[in-house]
Amino acid sequence: MSKTNAGRFFEDYALGEVIRHAVPRTLAEGERALYHALYPARHALHSSDAFAGACGLDGSPLDDLITFHVVFGKTVPDISLNAVANLGYAEGRWLKPVYPGDTLSAESEVIGLKQNSNGTSGLVYVRTTGRDQTGEPVLDYVRWVMVRKGNLEAPAPDTTIPDLAKVVAPEDLVIPDGLSFADYDFTAAGEPHRWGDYAKGEVIDHVDGSTIEEAEHMLATRLWQNTAKVHFDATFREDGKRLIYGGHVISMARALSFNGLANAQMLVAINGGAHANPCFAGDTLRAWTEVLDAAPLTDDIGALRLRLVAVKGPEALAGDLKGEDGRYLPHVLLDLDYWALMPR
Amino acid sequence: MSKTNAGRFFEDYALGEVIRHAVPRTLAEGERALYHALYPARHALHSSDAFAGACGLDGSPLDDLITFHVVFGKTVPDISLNAVANLGYAEGRWLKPVYPGDTLSAESEVIGLKQNSNGTSGLVYVRTTGRDQTGEPVLDYVRWVMVRKGNLEAPAPDTTIPDLAKVVAPEDLVIPDGLSFADYDFTAAGEPHRWGDYAKGEVIDHVDGSTIEEAEHMLATRLWQNTAKVHFDATFREDGKRLIYGGHVISMARALSFNGLANAQMLVAINGGAHANPCFAGDTLRAWTEVLDAAPLTDDIGALRLRLVAVKGPEALAGDLKGEDGRYLPHVLLDLDYWALMPR
Amino acid sequence: MSKTNAGRFFEDYALGEVIRHAVPRTLAEGERALYHALYPARHALHSSDAFAGACGLDGSPLDDLITFHVVFGKTVPDISLNAVANLGYAEGRWLKPVYPGDTLSAESEVIGLKQNSNGTSGLVYVRTTGRDQTGEPVLDYVRWVMVRKGNLEAPAPDTTIPDLAKVVAPEDLVIPDGLSFADYDFTAAGEPHRWGDYAKGEVIDHVDGSTIEEAEHMLATRLWQNTAKVHFDATFREDGKRLIYGGHVISMARALSFNGLANAQMLVAINGGAHANPCFAGDTLRAWTEVLDAAPLTDDIGALRLRLVAVKGPEALAGDLKGEDGRYLPHVLLDLDYWALMPR
Repeated sequence: MSKTNAGRFFEDYALGEVIRHAVPRTLAEGERALYHALYPARHALHSSDAFAGACGLDGSPLDDLITFHVVFGKTVPDISLNAVANLGYAEGRWLKPVYPGDTLSAESEVIGLKQNSNGTSGLVYVRTTGRDQTGEPVLDYVRWVMVRKGNLEAPAPDTTIPDLAKVVAPEDLVIPDGLSFADYDFTAAGEPHRWGDYAKGEVIDHVDGSTIEEAEHMLATRLWQNTAKVHFDATFREDGKRLIYGGHVISMARALSFNGLANAQMLVAINGGAHANPCFAGDTLRAWTEVLDAAPLTDDIGALRLRLVAVKGPEALAGDLKGEDGRYLPHVLLDLDYWALMPR
Repeated sequence: MSKTNAGRFFEDYALGEVIRHAVPRTLAEGERALYHALYPARHALHSSDAFAGACGLDGSPLDDLITFHVVFGKTVPDISLNAVANLGYAEGRWLKPVYPGDTLSAESEVIGLKQNSNGTSGLVYVRTTGRDQTGEPVLDYVRWVMVRKGNLEAPAPDTTIPDLAKVVAPEDLVIPDGLSFADYDFTAAGEPHRWGDYAKGEVIDHVDGSTIEEAEHMLATRLWQNTAKVHFDATFREDGKRLIYGGHVISMARALSFNGLANAQMLVAINGGAHANPCFAGDTLRAWTEVLDAAPLTDDIGALRLRLVAVKGPEALAGDLKGEDGRYLPHVLLDLDYWALMPR
Repeated sequence: MSKTNAGRFFEDYALGEVIRHAVPRTLAEGERALYHALYPARHALHSSDAFAGACGLDGSPLDDLITFHVVFGKTVPDISLNAVANLGYAEGRWLKPVYPGDTLSAESEVIGLKQNSNGTSGLVYVRTTGRDQTGEPVLDYVRWVMVRKGNLEAPAPDTTIPDLAKVVAPEDLVIPDGLSFADYDFTAAGEPHRWGDYAKGEVIDHVDGSTIEEAEHMLATRLWQNTAKVHFDATFREDGKRLIYGGHVISMARALSFNGLANAQMLVAINGGAHANPCFAGDTLRAWTEVLDAAPLTDDIGALRLRLVAVKGPEALAGDLKGEDGRYLPHVLLDLDYWALMPR
């Protein structure tokens, strides 16, 4: 049995250690098509070579969340196989679009450790970088997870908690080489709303709902080579339910947000995010967005800082996300804070 | 909430108006593979570059119904989001095969309007044209839908009902450039039956059945970027059922028809069609075909006019489609009249 | 009804006959992506062009089991449509990797016939060869099935039972042109274990489980253009269950075996195999492997002969596969004997 990977426990991480994750992955047109089958994704830049070409790119890049999921998936065997909870994201930035034919790999540096006071688990902070076949970074983000200790006798490491930005600063957002919205075709994109049409505090109900099936979330999660048992094995949890990968909820909510944010073409940063409650097959997912901030970047490109919330249940209206106890209400699935690029 | 698209109501259409639909779409090998996973499609021309090359084409084009679904999907947000019923098709013609790498867009012209006598809805007739990245048309068809009025006070438009051909004339069928069945390999195609082997009135039971799952029809319908709520949201209908996109039934029936029509390689026209009854997950779909007509086109290519019927339930035999009241019997899902190309 | 294929019956096969199977199939990036969505496949050689290139190949070939499934699927309409049972495999060899863009076709030679003593069915042995667009063989294997007689009056053929090797000899294993593991990157591949680290008799529990959905196995089985009714039509069996294609179990088990056999990069032979019990949706599949033999092939490549067992149910431990009556225990789904290539 010793040849299989049991995953790392809290005491197996050392501050400053760089973990090179396994299984580089070449992405191509198949992943793009599956993304369109799994999610109601319609943003024109990720749908049409012609549209993307008119925006200055060399054809249509793969959806930014494909990059995220593939890089994240690679980290699972090393970072979160024995994780009790996926606690947060910060300082996420997309650095370069990924095109069909690119090969991604990932590595993570341990940037923070803190054993919990009960001595049975601890927090692990990693900065993960995804790179393409040229070695250039395509995505960079911090996440922290709570990991069980395997050996309770192992000594606690010195506590180091990284200093993380609450929000990626607009000047740190990376505009892909060549991108221009100067000749943007709003009709082809599906909506007339420009960056300047959105106001801080504005809330957009994305209207549509999607009921999730077991086969769908498993197809998606496997596609990213994410192997966490809890998503696939109905005998793993006592209740016989398969927990849906949080990234499936992110992609579904982002795709639903087309309706009202059709021109928020590219994701450029994740400021933070919480998987507020577990999602299971049979849940009907809806989404709404709150405009948190806006930053002009170039003459024709602006960034919107958006709070994307996914909820389940037929009511699913915008409203309080948390109860008086400060905890997320049970119908809230996702609370994601990100920056997207739009035509000015 | 004003940034989202609520869809057009009957009073929002004007005769002669041309609506350019959103989100151009580049199709590639991923869509082909998904089509083969979603439907038991086996027609050799759409399966093998070598077979298609021997028929004079530059490799294997995407299934003709992929073209139809993608173009149809683009029209949904503008034409049928508030449709009460999808009433009919006419004068549909495939004009040019679509290959991996092509980018499709669509526009529709309003060619007919008629307010219903109750004043709460009306018929909208549109001629939809799909084009590739060069602007050349690949598909052209008329469909008409019943659309709700949003403002009951809006004046009724003048009634205009287009004069539509009951059948596309054989001389109007478009044979793809270069297509020849002179060196057709019947063994590779799977059946020995030539165009001349089929007789008017002949009925072919396609034998196989396929039980449909929720995940499958949703994957398919999303792949075509068709966003109609009723297909995805189990909370939308009072009975908690998701209505299966009618095009999913068309593709399933067409694929099943391989068994008996393996050499009906290409669809070239839709003369008419009715989605006779709703289809839901769990239904087991079967299909049969009646040969309605035959027309020789070239020395080696003939066209068959075929009536493709999809039914559900284990009985599913050919027989009466309609009851004494003239309405489709409950087990009938599809009644489609089309032209296909076969080797003579 | 005469135009449809009812399949061959036992009396329709003649010794020495070569059956050319229908519908050549071009495979591309879409099939690769779907394979990754359907199975938790992570072997680096089939995941990354860069990794495969470093192993001397021209990019990443499609998973070896894609080749097997596509070739097998082509044989179904001619070999197993009226099969009562799929009894065995022997002398299977992969002869050449298949790359995106290749077109596969298949033919089978009848190499054995034996009518059963009850006179209602018989054994048919075929050697099936898959070829690419150049005509070069990519896969070759023997399987035998029990097929019903259609006409009970038909005379019994002379009995011929082919002499089949119990194991493909190491010297008959085909190493793909150019393959070298001299510069193998174990970190990228995911595990440090070399060929020499495995010992005969060693058993590896692959740990992970996967609960199978109807939509998944039907998507997979259709993708291989395998049309056997029993996989798709819930009304076909009296119990209303759809039997899962045995190849789906093979692929799932092989993919799960990454955990402990990440470096068993390529399948090169099937020595034998049994689909021990039927698999249905809802089953949770687990797998374990026993190392049966090892053979060095080149300075840097070795072959392991592996017994891959798939079981269902939460217990699913390694242990007896058969009861005292010599029959497989009910939880055993697959017992497959194959050779794989590993870095020495």
